Amino acid sequence: MTTISEHVVSMAQEARRASLVMARLSTSVKNSMLQAMAAALERSSAEIIAENDRDLEAGRQKGLSAAMLDRLMLDEKRIGGIADALREVAALADPVGEVTRMWKRPNELMVGKMRIPLGTIGIIYESRPNVTADAAALCLKAGNAVVLRGGSEAINSNMVIARVLQGVLKEMAIPEAALSLIPFTEREGVLALLKQEQSIDLIIPRGGESLIRFVVENSRIPVIKHYKGVCHIFVDASADFDKAERIIVNSKTQRPGVCNALETLLIHRDVAAEFIPRIAATLAGLGVELRGDGEFCRLVPTATEATEADWHAEYLELILACRVVDDMDGAIDHINRYCSLHTESIITSDYGRAQRFIREVNSSCVMVNASTRFADGGQLGLGAEIGISTTKLHSFGPMGLEDLTTTKFIVYGDGQVRE
Amino acid sequence: MTTISEHVVSMAQEARRASLVMARLSTSVKNSMLQAMAAALERSSAEIIAENDRDLEAGRQKGLSAAMLDRLMLDEKRIGGIADALREVAALADPVGEVTRMWKRPNELMVGKMRIPLGTIGIIYESRPNVTADAAALCLKAGNAVVLRGGSEAINSNMVIARVLQGVLKEMAIPEAALSLIPFTEREGVLALLKQEQSIDLIIPRGGESLIRFVVENSRIPVIKHYKGVCHIFVDASADFDKAERIIVNSKTQRPGVCNALETLLIHRDVAAEFIPRIAATLAGLGVELRGDGEFCRLVPTATEATEADWHAEYLELILACRVVDDMDGAIDHINRYCSLHTESIITSDYGRAQRFIREVNSSCVMVNASTRFADGGQLGLGAEIGISTTKLHSFGPMGLEDLTTTKFIVYGDGQVRE
Repeated sequence: MTTISEHVVSMAQEARRASLVMARLSTSVKNSMLQAMAAALERSSAEIIAENDRDLEAGRQKGLSAAMLDRLMLDEKRIGGIADALREVAALADPVGEVTRMWKRPNELMVGKMRIPLGTIGIIYESRPNVTADAAALCLKAGNAVVLRGGSEAINSNMVIARVLQGVLKEMAIPEAALSLIPFTEREGVLALLKQEQSIDLIIPRGGESLIRFVVENSRIPVIKHYKGVCHIFVDASADFDKAERIIVNSKTQRPGVCNALETLLIHRDVAAEFIPRIAATLAGLGVELRGDGEFCRLVPTATEATEADWHAEYLELILACRVVDDMDGAIDHINRYCSLHTESIITSDYGRAQRFIREVNSSCVMVNASTRFADGGQLGLGAEIGISTTKLHSFGPMGLEDLTTTKFIVYGDGQVRE
Repeated sequence: MTTISEHVVSMAQEARRASLVMARLSTSVKNSMLQAMAAALERSSAEIIAENDRDLEAGRQKGLSAAMLDRLMLDEKRIGGIADALREVAALADPVGEVTRMWKRPNELMVGKMRIPLGTIGIIYESRPNVTADAAALCLKAGNAVVLRGGSEAINSNMVIARVLQGVLKEMAIPEAALSLIPFTEREGVLALLKQEQSIDLIIPRGGESLIRFVVENSRIPVIKHYKGVCHIFVDASADFDKAERIIVNSKTQRPGVCNALETLLIHRDVAAEFIPRIAATLAGLGVELRGDGEFCRLVPTATEATEADWHAEYLELILACRVVDDMDGAIDHINRYCSLHTESIITSDYGRAQRFIREVNSSCVMVNASTRFADGGQLGLGAEIGISTTKLHSFGPMGLEDLTTTKFIVYGDGQVRE
């Protein structure tokens, strides 16, 4: 009998072998595969719902919250949504094989860079079972093999979804190991996966900060991740107040529980007295609790005094930290000190300040006169999002299909040798 | 009194702060800085040679080999070479601020990707003291701060070079912490550096496989590295024999001790009887020891029988593993199994096979009719080389200045909010 570790090691090795086949598949075969997977999920919805019921029942017995149970739940409509997401991935352009640049050397060698799959990707995620299909589809479309490891609450749902998708691989004579799911909920399985640097090229953890820290601390494989989003908006002295209000309201309240929601508002001193009472009234009317520095609180008596912890906070709820800054330098200093490298936006009508903000703020998304909520793969035009990176390597910011590839050098010669 | 670890932690933190200043420096300031550093090194050559003498003396007492002592040695001419290398880096185009792409979204948002420095880079290297200046120059030119940790044999040489370069930073009122060198040779210093993920964005180890494995196993920071180069050439049935011979000789013998030298030769069965005796005679005449599979050895009685270990070997000397393969599939299967993702070249005059090799072999450099020795940042036109990556993330293959940067998303809006 094999141990969990041995089982995971052999899954990773088989995934590596399957990745060589995946890398050579034509775009049309990959698209047919994804279309067939979508149809298979819809066809298997009764079976999926039955397995999902087992997870829901176990969750109820474990006392999961209503919100958690809702995230876990699959019905006909949600399965249709998962299938549609696969069809959307099928419709995206295939990044593999694109020659992103090509140049000629003095010795007439033609040197270029061609996009290739990363190889084998490990995805470690928490409760929602749709990730099993979504993440797998993106990895496969980019020509990779994928090893999935979902949360224990969704184990039966994840396993049935993976089985349905593998059925399509088998029908199409693609190695089933191109998509595998670790069938163990023990931590030993994750730890074994994180050590397979010979077989796995990249780990993407998706979940809460503690999951991500666990993965980073235990992985010998490169990890792409973000811990949190402390997004800032800076209202410059030259801001159009209507635009500023619209953008702040949207950034803070349209969906407060996500990583690209606004957490800290910075206001230029020159417009503090005029703008702050107005935005404070609007936000208070929308149920937003305001925590300000001394100057902000003098203008907004209902606000509470912010502490150092507020400048670091990712509230993910209707609370906003607010601070008056002397000028652009003050805003940039605050951002450099407290930001999480996620998303920052300036509201301004001054050309020079817009350009300076774009140039000098080095978070993964830097915006002018736009809602922080646009920091999203779909919204930025990447087609679909596999995750967001605040690791300043490989990919920085929302990641799409292209971020699941790398480039190799290609060289066309005619007998050249080195002198 | 602070411990070594505390000292390294505070160096890394100061480097992080300095990186914010480095990121904003104009191209002309960075170029003046590098020119001034080159002049300062030349001006300080007597001092550098004196410190280098201390390292050489210690090396002799420790019994270092003549080759090692030669690698360590600095004289007026070599210091001039280091200074010239800095001037070459000054002459390279500045990658920072380049907008690599920009597109418009349906809501009129303009979304682009702009190149920014990585931030703070840690370089861990072995004996040659020129790396202190070369690697620092590339990191600084790309707008990064750098923390260096050289080998113990060169500690005095490295320290004096770093001090000279820091003197220029001070004169120009750039924070000296933008370039720092860990002044300890104890392992504790490296281990502390590898844990500073809050301050350091990337670790580049340069040295032997054991150094690199040590870094990978102990780092919480992303590492870009390559372990070894097992480079292949495949002589297709349609190869021009003159070109094939010229390229094989160059790839194997021009500089056998480097990672882009040829280690395994694969020959198509259809031309084995005709080509192998010819290339074997040429290589034997150049002092190359040949180790072949059964078929190769039947054609070349002086060759010895290769074992499994030979297909994995990075000889770095005048030994070549040789194998007859049935066809293109056989060649690609062999490469997939044994290659180190470094460099592979096909010699062919067949259009379809050239294209198939380019498409299907996913090493970091894939070539047609060219010497593997071109797998080099300078030769490929990157201007200068900071290292070679066989990690399939961020950069894959020879790395230049651009590989010391990442890209952020930039978004130009006019009040857009998300529906």
